[in-house]
Amino acid sequence: MNEAGSSISVAAADDERWMMQAIELSHQSLYITAPNPRVACLIVKEGQLLASGVTQQAGGPHAEVMALRQAQERGLDVKGATFYVTLEPCSHHGRTPPCADALVKAAPARVVVAMADPNPLVAGQGIARLRAAGIQVATSVCTEQALAVNPGFVARMTRGTPWLWLKSAASLDGQTALRNGVSQWITGPQARADGHHWRARSCVVLSGLGTVRADNPQLSVRDVATTRQPIKAIIDTRLEIDEKARLLDGSKTWIFTCNDNPEKSARLAQLNAQVVVMPGRNGGVDLPAVMRWLGQHEVNEVHVEGGARLNGALLQSGCVDELLVYLAPIVLGQGLGMYQLQAMETLDQALRFEFFETLAMGADVRLRARLGSRWQELLKAVGGP
Amino acid sequence: MNEAGSSISVAAADDERWMMQAIELSHQSLYITAPNPRVACLIVKEGQLLASGVTQQAGGPHAEVMALRQAQERGLDVKGATFYVTLEPCSHHGRTPPCADALVKAAPARVVVAMADPNPLVAGQGIARLRAAGIQVATSVCTEQALAVNPGFVARMTRGTPWLWLKSAASLDGQTALRNGVSQWITGPQARADGHHWRARSCVVLSGLGTVRADNPQLSVRDVATTRQPIKAIIDTRLEIDEKARLLDGSKTWIFTCNDNPEKSARLAQLNAQVVVMPGRNGGVDLPAVMRWLGQHEVNEVHVEGGARLNGALLQSGCVDELLVYLAPIVLGQGLGMYQLQAMETLDQALRFEFFETLAMGADVRLRARLGSRWQELLKAVGGP
Repeated sequence: MNEAGSSISVAAADDERWMMQAIELSHQSLYITAPNPRVACLIVKEGQLLASGVTQQAGGPHAEVMALRQAQERGLDVKGATFYVTLEPCSHHGRTPPCADALVKAAPARVVVAMADPNPLVAGQGIARLRAAGIQVATSVCTEQALAVNPGFVARMTRGTPWLWLKSAASLDGQTALRNGVSQWITGPQARADGHHWRARSCVVLSGLGTVRADNPQLSVRDVATTRQPIKAIIDTRLEIDEKARLLDGSKTWIFTCNDNPEKSARLAQLNAQVVVMPGRNGGVDLPAVMRWLGQHEVNEVHVEGGARLNGALLQSGCVDELLVYLAPIVLGQGLGMYQLQAMETLDQALRFEFFETLAMGADVRLRARLGSRWQELLKAVGGP
Repeated sequence: MNEAGSSISVAAADDERWMMQAIELSHQSLYITAPNPRVACLIVKEGQLLASGVTQQAGGPHAEVMALRQAQERGLDVKGATFYVTLEPCSHHGRTPPCADALVKAAPARVVVAMADPNPLVAGQGIARLRAAGIQVATSVCTEQALAVNPGFVARMTRGTPWLWLKSAASLDGQTALRNGVSQWITGPQARADGHHWRARSCVVLSGLGTVRADNPQLSVRDVATTRQPIKAIIDTRLEIDEKARLLDGSKTWIFTCNDNPEKSARLAQLNAQVVVMPGRNGGVDLPAVMRWLGQHEVNEVHVEGGARLNGALLQSGCVDELLVYLAPIVLGQGLGMYQLQAMETLDQALRFEFFETLAMGADVRLRARLGSRWQELLKAVGGP
């Protein structure tokens, strides 16, 4: 490699290192920014970190503005610095003024961007504005890692529906409960707390009437600290939910049904539960229609904690992007399975995911798998490889 | 830490580094030494590796002798060197003379031993002989890693039965086949080749009549290169095996049954299949009795590729030490499960293992779990922590 190539490689390695630090920082805003994406910004000059910021709750300042404020408070000059942002700076007036304008005013020498903003209101215009102002812009640095922080935002912007994962906790042989329904607890405290982390980052925790009846869950975030609770959502085809169910605790809830029952809906509304009447499909609520409705209502990420029946219906209707599976090192032999599907005749009919992360979680393991094609679509939409 | 403490730590780190290299080398003999343990020996002097050796097939030279021969061929003086051996040198005349004597004659300054030999014919006498000759001996270096190479040998020597693992290949939701029995292939080529590696290192590949009837398997090692095939064993309570079954290809086979049928046994003997009549238990062959018989016949490791029924019977009779599970990132929803057990009423009845290794294997993952108490027993027997 010649000297120029070598120094380019060093610069690229530096960019990746700073960008990974920015992505790590963006995790701080995982629970708070919905429906906005989680973004972080680092301001770096001569190899030194001057300031950093992360996006605040919706309506609050974006990451770039937070970082600029911090630099100002510290009395530091950001002119000529490099800005690392995990998402293309916005170019439109939303609840806050465009970040691209704030960046132009700050006059950095260079802006490094992990992924393009798939929001049609931005779509490259943020980067174009920076370049028009004579700022050097590098794009697509650590795109895949940045996308993992905001798959739901990108999914909603590009296909109009949220990114949905099914969470399951099972024995090594795939049982989520004994035949008598006993399931507390198959996995250990670390896995359970991690499950609450995934609830906390989602916009909606979705379950079905079967689970409400069997377990009477609260569906709230408890094992991790959060200032914001996701919305609860229940698939209840015949609107049979018990009005005394624990989840109806006054927190915002959506109940998707095919049964238009104004009296019960009115009573549920008093519990802060909105009944949404949906078309039917295959004897239940039309789940793809629910996904479109959720997308229209600014839902980025859906965390499903349902039983085998809802899981199976979501899988078979193509609503599932990702599987989040905790396996305990125990053997149960028989019990309730993870996903209820119609019997297959050949292995060609299997639903095929891709493992992309395997982690020890206390005594348990956590496996994550996703639909490769869906992930590639998102990656392409944000300028990934 | 004072200077002496610090130099002791450096020496200990060096010992561990060399021992891990020796353990790695001992893997070269995984397929060949049964019923003897797999052992490696490194000869190190002034930080340089002079020579190394691994145990050859039973009756052939042990690791220490192989290493000494290599040093001699290279014209190197091993006097005053340090020998790293993954198992205590033997002190008895078996098919070969005692390695401890060969070591004493070589006059090293020091011998480092990973684990004590649990063979009652050795049991500390190898180390005692070295010490009596004025050689410094360090023990219990990387014991757990060394034990992982020879759990079966240690199990047979200490409790009289082999170390047994159940191998399963399943979908992420725990199905080993569709309801119609189709199972080829749930996991990918890397996982399947890895399964053959585990067959190749075992002494016995065990299956049940159900699997023989359903899949008509060969039960031989094919996907990895080996000069030795494990013995095939079948649990066949009523001696119903079809004499045209593919596995009866002239290779050594044991058939465990409760049905004493001299005519059929005589015909099977002509196919190199020995029928072993066993006591019955719970309507089938007494499986713990089979394990004792296998131990008496010098079987160290048993690799089980059976169906849910044999797996369940082995689990419930306490014959299983370890689970070897390949999971594919696919969802089948329903099918044949991994382990057939009686229904449990509470989670206290769950069979509890411990995950100790998780590995990506092509598109699949490989999970290994074992009974913690069994492992601790073996570890204790070889001088582990």
